Amino acid sequence: MSKFWSPFVKDLVPYVPGEQPKLERLVKLNTNENPYGPSPKVLEAIGAELDDNLRLYPDPNGERLKQAIAGYYGVQPSQVFVGNGSDEVLAHVFHGLFQHGRPLLFPDISYSFYPVYCGLYHIPFETVALDEQFRINVADYARPNGGIIFPNPNAPTGCLLPLTAIRQLLEANRESVVVVDEAYVDFGGESAISLVDQYPNLLVTQTLSKSRSLAGLRVGLAVGNAELIEALERIKNSFNSYPLDRLALAGAVAAFEDQDYFEQTCQAVIASREQLVSELQDLGFEVLPSAANFIFARHPQHDAAQLAAALREQGVIVRHFKQARISQFLRITIGTAEQNMALQEALTPLVQ
Amino acid sequence: MSKFWSPFVKDLVPYVPGEQPKLERLVKLNTNENPYGPSPKVLEAIGAELDDNLRLYPDPNGERLKQAIAGYYGVQPSQVFVGNGSDEVLAHVFHGLFQHGRPLLFPDISYSFYPVYCGLYHIPFETVALDEQFRINVADYARPNGGIIFPNPNAPTGCLLPLTAIRQLLEANRESVVVVDEAYVDFGGESAISLVDQYPNLLVTQTLSKSRSLAGLRVGLAVGNAELIEALERIKNSFNSYPLDRLALAGAVAAFEDQDYFEQTCQAVIASREQLVSELQDLGFEVLPSAANFIFARHPQHDAAQLAAALREQGVIVRHFKQARISQFLRITIGTAEQNMALQEALTPLVQ
Repeated sequence: MSKFWSPFVKDLVPYVPGEQPKLERLVKLNTNENPYGPSPKVLEAIGAELDDNLRLYPDPNGERLKQAIAGYYGVQPSQVFVGNGSDEVLAHVFHGLFQHGRPLLFPDISYSFYPVYCGLYHIPFETVALDEQFRINVADYARPNGGIIFPNPNAPTGCLLPLTAIRQLLEANRESVVVVDEAYVDFGGESAISLVDQYPNLLVTQTLSKSRSLAGLRVGLAVGNAELIEALERIKNSFNSYPLDRLALAGAVAAFEDQDYFEQTCQAVIASREQLVSELQDLGFEVLPSAANFIFARHPQHDAAQLAAALREQGVIVRHFKQARISQFLRITIGTAEQNMALQEALTPLVQ
Repeated sequence: MSKFWSPFVKDLVPYVPGEQPKLERLVKLNTNENPYGPSPKVLEAIGAELDDNLRLYPDPNGERLKQAIAGYYGVQPSQVFVGNGSDEVLAHVFHGLFQHGRPLLFPDISYSFYPVYCGLYHIPFETVALDEQFRINVADYARPNGGIIFPNPNAPTGCLLPLTAIRQLLEANRESVVVVDEAYVDFGGESAISLVDQYPNLLVTQTLSKSRSLAGLRVGLAVGNAELIEALERIKNSFNSYPLDRLALAGAVAAFEDQDYFEQTCQAVIASREQLVSELQDLGFEVLPSAANFIFARHPQHDAAQLAAALREQGVIVRHFKQARISQFLRITIGTAEQNMALQEALTPLVQ
């Protein structure tokens, strides 16, 4: 460690994102990107913004985008926060809403960025074990806490918690903030945004990286009570006035306006998922029930790390986590029909 | 304040960026944007990236951009950090390099985001008064500190500190990090990047928002010893893996590759500045010597706030700061010849 570093930097354990390979022609099923490109209207809207006005700062408040999101979900723009990907939004959430001295609660198997944020902002945390079927049991969260966060559907399991269970959790936990991280909700879940007007401590985060095919554009959002949003705005305006560039703002607005394309591509991903699940089951895999654009699967006779390595040799990349409870699982992003076939062809000889 | 907020949020005093007016046809000389658009090659490079690959995450490390910047400045890519505008880069600098308990030092008249970052990261600070001519005197910084930061040229004064003085400051201050914030250096200064190999505690930040006409794209950078850069990477990777989107990365690389356009537009801004300075002096203004793309001027007989308000009524926006020592100054961005003429025409009847 350098004497010039702020002392906490030495103890930081940064998040490790899935590989972004430089090689072309790989079947890339490792970072839950959408197999379909963004709406043509998104590309058109960005193209229309691509001119000399790039010399000018963007709207620091992203008002048009907030209005588009508010309109889409039937909330007020003051209930919407936007940021540079949902990772940035989550960082501000941890900083602005979870520093209460009491432990933050999240599932033991969950998005591995959560403990990283806790390290960055010195937030104590406790993990709550998923049950034997890798499901969240909301009764387990009835203990003193400085906040609760979980993805829904959960990552990397894909399992969905129904809205009735989220409501139970909120009824039992009114004194701290509950964040539902809905990165994957559009592939089979129901958004908890419908509950934000009833629960002032509920915040819902989403991203345009998955269901709206815009991982390359970096746009995320949060919806909740205006008072929670105000904390995020204060942090954002003390950190970076303009987190969203002009092109990202234009593209994101267009993405929320093209409902047809969004629904078509989500349905196509869901259909591919159901087919892939059935094929993997035929190969002897146990597949957790998924409401996301990925599946989480293990094979009783084959080591997951070895399978991942063997797939990579054949040009198919999936994600494997070394974490104890899930070290025998593979997380596989739903690809196009063609990509799924390539996966199946590479996988079949390995497990038969 | 909400009981759900992390307690420090209540005391945050966010930065207030210059107005981004919704009205068209205003002569906008208030946020130091470049009057010229970005290089046509930048627009071309972004256009070439505008396709279905937006569904994929960008390179989390921005390696091509780091290589382009390293090549441009003759340093190693490991000495380069990139971020979502220099404001984000500065936020990580404050977080990762300035939390030492001892006070951070910066000029009393300076970029008004610095104290905001101190509030966000609980960093004690002391301001060091500029001299009577609004210049930085490096001898005044010879006192215990947890870091030193200043813009060069300074903002909002435009005054340049020569490299010899920066070297003196570094010689006298080897135990803490010195950050030279070169947002405006390309309009008449000499970059301190030439000194980073000699001083392991020197970090230089820059932005593509001013001299490269890309305020709307959000790209900033830092150059320094690889050990300082490592602290920033750790923070970035604990905050947001992908701060730069695919379009911003492509555009920024192209901006560093088009040296001719960059030099032409910088020279044009400098020529306009010299002409505007002379015109304002003819109108009785005192103008501080500027090496930036703005000037800082006061009129001995006319109140600055009133002048700014009167200009606005005529559709010309300049920036006025209420801060004590500079409340009689106007900060005026250098526009095109046409914009400068509109300014002059609006201003002349007000001061004669």
